[in-house]
Amino acid sequence: MADFTDKLKPRYDGAATLEAERNSSDINVDELAKHLLSRDGFLERQERVLKVLEKEKLFRKEQQMNLSRPERYHLGLARAKAIQRLVREHSWDHEDYKMAEYLNDEMSPYHLHMSMFVTTIREQGSEEQKAYWMPKILNYDIIGCYAQSELGHGSNVRGLETVAKWDQMKREFKIHSPYLTSSKWWNGAMGRTATHAIIVAQLLLPKKGSAKEYENHGPQPFIVQIRDSKTHQPFDGIVVGDIGPKYGYASMDNGYMLFDHYRVPKSAMLSRYAEVNDETGALKRRGHPAVVYGSLTFVRGQIIMHARLILARAVTIAARYCAVRRQFQDRDAVRDVDEMKVLDYPTVQIRILPLLATTFALHYTGEMMYNLYHRSRESVEKCDFEPLAELHSASSGLKSLCTMLTADGIETCRRAMGGHGYLSKPTVEGDNWMITQQVAAYLIKKMTQAVKDPNAPPKDLTDELFQYYLKNRDHRIPQNVVRGSEIDDQAIVDVFQWRTADLSYRAYQTRVVERKPWTKLMIQLHSLSRAFGEQILVTTFSNSFQTTASSLSPPTPAVLKTCFRLYSLYTLDTFASSFMLTTSIAHDSIYALQDAILALMTELRPHAVKLMDAWSIPDFLLDSALGRYDGRVYEKLYDMAHRRNPLNTVTFNPDWRSEEIVLGSGDRGRCILAKL
Amino acid sequence: MADFTDKLKPRYDGAATLEAERNSSDINVDELAKHLLSRDGFLERQERVLKVLEKEKLFRKEQQMNLSRPERYHLGLARAKAIQRLVREHSWDHEDYKMAEYLNDEMSPYHLHMSMFVTTIREQGSEEQKAYWMPKILNYDIIGCYAQSELGHGSNVRGLETVAKWDQMKREFKIHSPYLTSSKWWNGAMGRTATHAIIVAQLLLPKKGSAKEYENHGPQPFIVQIRDSKTHQPFDGIVVGDIGPKYGYASMDNGYMLFDHYRVPKSAMLSRYAEVNDETGALKRRGHPAVVYGSLTFVRGQIIMHARLILARAVTIAARYCAVRRQFQDRDAVRDVDEMKVLDYPTVQIRILPLLATTFALHYTGEMMYNLYHRSRESVEKCDFEPLAELHSASSGLKSLCTMLTADGIETCRRAMGGHGYLSKPTVEGDNWMITQQVAAYLIKKMTQAVKDPNAPPKDLTDELFQYYLKNRDHRIPQNVVRGSEIDDQAIVDVFQWRTADLSYRAYQTRVVERKPWTKLMIQLHSLSRAFGEQILVTTFSNSFQTTASSLSPPTPAVLKTCFRLYSLYTLDTFASSFMLTTSIAHDSIYALQDAILALMTELRPHAVKLMDAWSIPDFLLDSALGRYDGRVYEKLYDMAHRRNPLNTVTFNPDWRSEEIVLGSGDRGRCILAKL
Repeated sequence: MADFTDKLKPRYDGAATLEAERNSSDINVDELAKHLLSRDGFLERQERVLKVLEKEKLFRKEQQMNLSRPERYHLGLARAKAIQRLVREHSWDHEDYKMAEYLNDEMSPYHLHMSMFVTTIREQGSEEQKAYWMPKILNYDIIGCYAQSELGHGSNVRGLETVAKWDQMKREFKIHSPYLTSSKWWNGAMGRTATHAIIVAQLLLPKKGSAKEYENHGPQPFIVQIRDSKTHQPFDGIVVGDIGPKYGYASMDNGYMLFDHYRVPKSAMLSRYAEVNDETGALKRRGHPAVVYGSLTFVRGQIIMHARLILARAVTIAARYCAVRRQFQDRDAVRDVDEMKVLDYPTVQIRILPLLATTFALHYTGEMMYNLYHRSRESVEKCDFEPLAELHSASSGLKSLCTMLTADGIETCRRAMGGHGYLSKPTVEGDNWMITQQVAAYLIKKMTQAVKDPNAPPKDLTDELFQYYLKNRDHRIPQNVVRGSEIDDQAIVDVFQWRTADLSYRAYQTRVVERKPWTKLMIQLHSLSRAFGEQILVTTFSNSFQTTASSLSPPTPAVLKTCFRLYSLYTLDTFASSFMLTTSIAHDSIYALQDAILALMTELRPHAVKLMDAWSIPDFLLDSALGRYDGRVYEKLYDMAHRRNPLNTVTFNPDWRSEEIVLGSGDRGRCILAKL
Repeated sequence: MADFTDKLKPRYDGAATLEAERNSSDINVDELAKHLLSRDGFLERQERVLKVLEKEKLFRKEQQMNLSRPERYHLGLARAKAIQRLVREHSWDHEDYKMAEYLNDEMSPYHLHMSMFVTTIREQGSEEQKAYWMPKILNYDIIGCYAQSELGHGSNVRGLETVAKWDQMKREFKIHSPYLTSSKWWNGAMGRTATHAIIVAQLLLPKKGSAKEYENHGPQPFIVQIRDSKTHQPFDGIVVGDIGPKYGYASMDNGYMLFDHYRVPKSAMLSRYAEVNDETGALKRRGHPAVVYGSLTFVRGQIIMHARLILARAVTIAARYCAVRRQFQDRDAVRDVDEMKVLDYPTVQIRILPLLATTFALHYTGEMMYNLYHRSRESVEKCDFEPLAELHSASSGLKSLCTMLTADGIETCRRAMGGHGYLSKPTVEGDNWMITQQVAAYLIKKMTQAVKDPNAPPKDLTDELFQYYLKNRDHRIPQNVVRGSEIDDQAIVDVFQWRTADLSYRAYQTRVVERKPWTKLMIQLHSLSRAFGEQILVTTFSNSFQTTASSLSPPTPAVLKTCFRLYSLYTLDTFASSFMLTTSIAHDSIYALQDAILALMTELRPHAVKLMDAWSIPDFLLDSALGRYDGRVYEKLYDMAHRRNPLNTVTFNPDWRSEEIVLGSGDRGRCILAKL
């Protein structure tokens, strides 16, 4: 279909523009990319797996948005299966497999099988259970899901309504859903895919010395086959299905499931830490359940590392597109100059560049979490559980903060790009506000200890900070972080730490001393958790200059320091009143923040495109005309519209007098009506 | 398909819960609904049109999310046509028609025809042109669209690349797209539906005394038939189509269009305000183009009124669901009480209740804008264009602020509801930051005048404010808005106004006195525009208590006052440092804000459900299981999943060894591969 548009070019050449952007910065992108992405051979693996996926038609993304939601599940399952075949064909290891999922960039119907399902068996199954189940799992002979959350309960595991009642006569459990809200809900892969499920249910055992009364021993995991191996139909007594279309995750069959006194053998209960006695029906617990925190912390470390790449994806698109996009001439310019690149507008910079800096802030904290996890694993092996509490709190606060920064950041990038916008993958998240309450409770406990014994040997950095705070709070001098054009990096770290300590002390004061109701404090405690997370990000970023980041070739270390300052000062400005009210920062510095931020953005601006290049997000994964590496934004947008849009192959009948929709079809609109 | 789940009930009865919520507040919902929604008979009209739409299968929404994007356009067109038939069948007037579009709640492929297309002809067409086109338009014999924005240019109309070049010999225009980025882009209804388009193009006329050189006279609108009346195919020299799937607006065919020296007659140029001379090719302008601002302002008034209903929709869903949803027991409670309604958590209240208050803040300002528009129409009729500038600026600042409040508010509500979330209709917006620059420029101009002549008779409220500010700025005493449990309503208005004046003065100082480059000021100017909009919302809300709102029966006026205070104090808290830096508010008040906000939320909480009931959003429009009027949230969620999800009628083959997707189909996955 050749036509006169084939030879048209954009008014401004996007490819030349990005080339010029790249030439104007001396950052060594390869070196920085290695610095950021060498852990576990990430870069090499990305390249290798990408080559395979790019060759397969099944993994082409450009028509995805034209599919219906049921079709998206068909496609998701087809891809999940294809990846398994590729794993075997190319002898991919588990990390390679995860890379394929990452590049494919949709929730796979097999995702839960190789994450929560296998992890739970591995961590909570007895040796015997593991010996039985693990080979089937690793071979994908069965497909598993993880059925914890319910229609009525998400975050509150203790409130789960599904029960597993012990039948002493038959030595079986009866799994049952007493209410509609007891329905398992939202659980990935359960709707159409899974053959087996981990079911978390309240364990009901007979009361000692009573034949009729039962006692609740709290939530326990059970492994249960839910569908027939041949027919793939659910067994009698189980109702299970997909919950229907939702915001995001079209390829995943999030499910619902209810049980009608469904009997499972005693061996269904995962029994590494607790087992029911055959003879007495009594529960015997063994081992330390805290070890579970360990793997949760590891998962959260991964969440931060993943969050930085998700945010980097949005910022990469925004930075490249805003460098290519031009709009309006400079208001102060003499007439008829080129229009300005929108990335040169401070109003655009203020939305994109602090987020660019945030990707690096997240990176160093993610690295720190990995290291902390590995160190604490060692103490756990020696049965020293002390470091786990600190690690768990840090990881909770950071998970909440990082996922919020990422979700907000994606939305900000999308809006900064104006009308064109882009299809951001919406991040479905649980309620980040709940997890922050645990963080605050931990900090209040630490502060209570510090007040009680301010000279005890500090067990961790929080103890050190709180003891320092208590010794100095009566003669605190609010710090200046900006003086004229000078920025004091040490003072930045100090004010973030001081704020955390002061907010912790206020929380201790209101809760422990004044005994105010917890519920009334929740907003205050949420801010405390956020401040704690921000303090970790700032401190860790600052520490990186003493260690890894300083070894890079110029100008990268200096540019990374600019990122550190921009992230910090932008956060200071956003929460200025919190820093002032905690006497962390001098008022003069607050006045100076805006000019300092403008100056930092001007410093950072020439490096924006190359800094994002270093995150090495391939075009295949970006899946965005606006964010293309080569800058051919408009060519691609037009190509997608003019040559690849199936709607344009159909001619419609726009006349309201006729019920016909497709011109000449004569179907009187019945076709579309049938789908409602 | 009866099964054991048919008789299950939720653990907590949602219907009884909402009934109890409604019984616990004395607000007269009918009275408040009339107060809010009587303009142009809105409530009566909603009820009447709703009855008709509810009866038609074509308007059922529950399967919409299962359709593909091309199917959504089919459905959108079918509905647009059906509404036209209903208009005639029920003798609906234009407002009834608009109500049907509002309740149908998707962008109709006819939407532009009856908005920008007809408005442009009406306002910019000559009498002769109107006589020719209007009957065809009103009868829908032709379907129009409005082709202004281009691939390369959205907000910057002066940068449009499409040209209309006058051919003096043939007395025709040649419309041409010189670049790929000249392609008309994003224009609604253009992709597949429209037969005609308003094309905005740069008017090129021969330079006086030169046969070869041309001069650009700026953008002008042309009316052009783009598709054949019989075949609905575009004419030679025109390439037009749908731009493809996008974030939101699936039912609308946003389009692209390019021209290859496409000839149109002289009569195509809309010539009420400008006409080309047949003999000389010279342009003759007549009339005052400022009148156009009038209709833009009217549209913006409508945007605010619409924004309040869109936000009300999200808050209605959030308030009802969070009243029904229970999670966790009170941490301080003795054991085994019912779990708390999540709306009783301050962490949930702080996200929902300020937004609830915002819906009312938007209402009174929307009303004020309508009144202002009608008053200024009268002066325009008398050729007094003075009030237009004030109106235009107010409306620009408010449009930006209100759409931002709404978009952010929808997102906040969605997240406050945790995992379940809901499918929010994403609001695609242009770049709100551009429009704010105009507002700031206007305020700087006003301040410059006020400084020059501080005793001139004030022309409007802004003049009054600025003159007051200049007289008092040397002896300003920052105000206390909160003292203990007392809130000073007059002081609230004062601090919002003072902040606007002070920020205006600072902008004047940096731009006019210090002559700093505009680009460097853009962030500061954006904040100024936002502050100006917030000041209007607060002042107008406060004024309402002197007039309309006070006539309502108790406790409604008191509850509305609580809304006013909550909106104001929440905004004060969010931008605390801005209020402090402008010496608007005393530091003591900042410390007191958080407790005052908590107390206001406690006051407001019992009325939350009924306040939102008053916005009268029908379930048909809410289209949300979570937000149902009757509180039967879980029953509906389960019904949608278990009984109405087409994916559950298909059994899949989850075994990776087989390429088959649907179990027993034997299609080896070819079906889905063919769609890629």
